[in-house]
Amino acid sequence: MRLKLTIAYDGVALAGWQSQPGGNTVQDFIESAIAATAKQAVRIHGSGRTDAGVHALGQIAHFDVPEGLTMNPFNWVPALNTKLPASIRVLACEEVAADFHARHSAQGKTYRYDLSLEPVLSPFRAGRAWHLPRQLDPFTLREMLACFEGRHDFEAFGARRGNETEETSYVRTITRVGLEEIAWGWRLRFTGDGFLYRMVRLMTGAAVQVAQGRLAVAEVAGLLDQAPGLPLGRCSHCAPADGLFLESVDYGRITR
Amino acid sequence: MRLKLTIAYDGVALAGWQSQPGGNTVQDFIESAIAATAKQAVRIHGSGRTDAGVHALGQIAHFDVPEGLTMNPFNWVPALNTKLPASIRVLACEEVAADFHARHSAQGKTYRYDLSLEPVLSPFRAGRAWHLPRQLDPFTLREMLACFEGRHDFEAFGARRGNETEETSYVRTITRVGLEEIAWGWRLRFTGDGFLYRMVRLMTGAAVQVAQGRLAVAEVAGLLDQAPGLPLGRCSHCAPADGLFLESVDYGRITR
Repeated sequence: MRLKLTIAYDGVALAGWQSQPGGNTVQDFIESAIAATAKQAVRIHGSGRTDAGVHALGQIAHFDVPEGLTMNPFNWVPALNTKLPASIRVLACEEVAADFHARHSAQGKTYRYDLSLEPVLSPFRAGRAWHLPRQLDPFTLREMLACFEGRHDFEAFGARRGNETEETSYVRTITRVGLEEIAWGWRLRFTGDGFLYRMVRLMTGAAVQVAQGRLAVAEVAGLLDQAPGLPLGRCSHCAPADGLFLESVDYGRITR
Repeated sequence: MRLKLTIAYDGVALAGWQSQPGGNTVQDFIESAIAATAKQAVRIHGSGRTDAGVHALGQIAHFDVPEGLTMNPFNWVPALNTKLPASIRVLACEEVAADFHARHSAQGKTYRYDLSLEPVLSPFRAGRAWHLPRQLDPFTLREMLACFEGRHDFEAFGARRGNETEETSYVRTITRVGLEEIAWGWRLRFTGDGFLYRMVRLMTGAAVQVAQGRLAVAEVAGLLDQAPGLPLGRCSHCAPADGLFLESVDYGRITR
């Protein structure tokens, strides 16, 4: 039986999603909790990695329940939560078809990025928002964000991970970028069919530079869809992990 | 020169307001930050204590700037924040009259208490709300909370602190108890001219018992204004520190 987990985590004190020798990652904690329940090692597969310090409201992972273990999917939620630190919570568990794959079946994702414009960053938002006490121009911010919408080559907004093979394509479609004013700042929301490594942080970093008057909209927009054969101009402004939340992963209709 | 500080803190990992030998209290951190700035020990006076795990959005304290130290009150804010952990922030600093006293001049306080009714407590609210996955009846809750409004003898809702002299009076006036539905639960708000030790947590604990059908409104209301000379019935339900926030302290008009 294959199960799909919906997971939320406060990344402030975590070393990211992916398992690593030092532990303290979401994958390590959840695999340990499953192993303690199933009495054997079980590998989980996430929809994608999140970096150290990044948060999730609806990360998705799947795993296969070992043969012979009969347990209602619903009961996995408390079974795992009692073994997890309070910074990681399994929100839901449901059975999915045997060919469901948290990463390969994903049709899209939504990320949110929170900017705090408070004079002093609230202690409740420390590590959970990017603190920008200097004002930014929301009209320019909106104009910049709109440029990211649509189907583009985002290679300039993708960081390289040392240990990974190159992407086969840097073309992604961002269906919507939202900008919402909240009580203490601005909330950016990016929905798309996929995101390169650090893409949301690089787009946000560049957009903030523009909204603070240090870069022109055209300079950043010019990094999209660059002509092949010429040296690639790269976005060099990366927003901190603090404000980034993986909100949800879209699988369309899941058939059981 | 006497300065008034407005302070916010996320109490999750703190041992409360009041200085103690083990440290890790808000008072200890702020006194250390002032001492590092003033190059001498300085005592601060808070509007009142908060217990370990309790939070503040607008705690107030005052201190006297040592003679010879000339620094614009406004500059104390960044000077202290750079020396404080991110869980404690000085939001404002202003000069006040020499007879202003954070505790004695206070005319009232507002506390908020957050109840989470989420099936699974969000990791972002761990330690910052009381998780009550079992439903509660908001009508009964509202009826119970209304009983606390007005001028009453709250002795049954005051815990005793071992090392303290008895209160001279247990009569307090609660001017307003608010109940607000929020996205993930209920927010209680108590405004009054003063609160006994643990009074908000005891009132909240009893109100939740009533809203969950385990106590009658009359049983709890009967603990108010008990006749003298008879053995005192005490409220024995104390809500956890997690959901309690000191929102603000009211000084009326402060004259400089």
